[in-house]
Amino acid sequence: MDNKEAIMVVLGKRLRIVRNAKRISQEKLAEYAQTDKNYISEVERGLKQPTIEKLYTITQALDINIEDLFKGIEEEIQSDFNI
Amino acid sequence: MDNKEAIMVVLGKRLRIVRNAKRISQEKLAEYAQTDKNYISEVERGLKQPTIEKLYTITQALDINIEDLFKGIEEEIQSDFNI
Repeated sequence: MDNKEAIMVVLGKRLRIVRNAKRISQEKLAEYAQTDKNYISEVERGLKQPTIEKLYTITQALDINIEDLFKGIEEEIQSDFNI
Repeated sequence: MDNKEAIMVVLGKRLRIVRNAKRISQEKLAEYAQTDKNYISEVERGLKQPTIEKLYTITQALDINIEDLFKGIEEEIQSDFNI
């Protein structure tokens, strides 16, 4: 896995952590972000890459700033994937 | 323009500001990011939406952290586009 793919895995993991912390179900998040549950599940597992616009919509649905999702992501990619 | 489209215009503007501040030409950035000059030009004008992976590659080519690109972007979108 190169660091391009790794960013999607880390972003997906972070989205899930935020969603769970806010006790929002995948169904509810999908509804807020005008998408469906499977899409959210695949994004969270790093299997699907949302557009930047859709990622922005998801962060707004989670009521977080998009910058928070990327905070220190380079370090996390390096430590998680040794790249 | 809704705030989804607005994020691409603001991101493009920010990429151009960073690229110029680092005195890197569009050609050079395109080379570093394994793409072409027109693509960089269209992204900078908000006309093309890179994937998150490609945006990450571009930020690495510019030697900035991707989080810096999104810092305070919600406020800038609101002030630039009144949304």
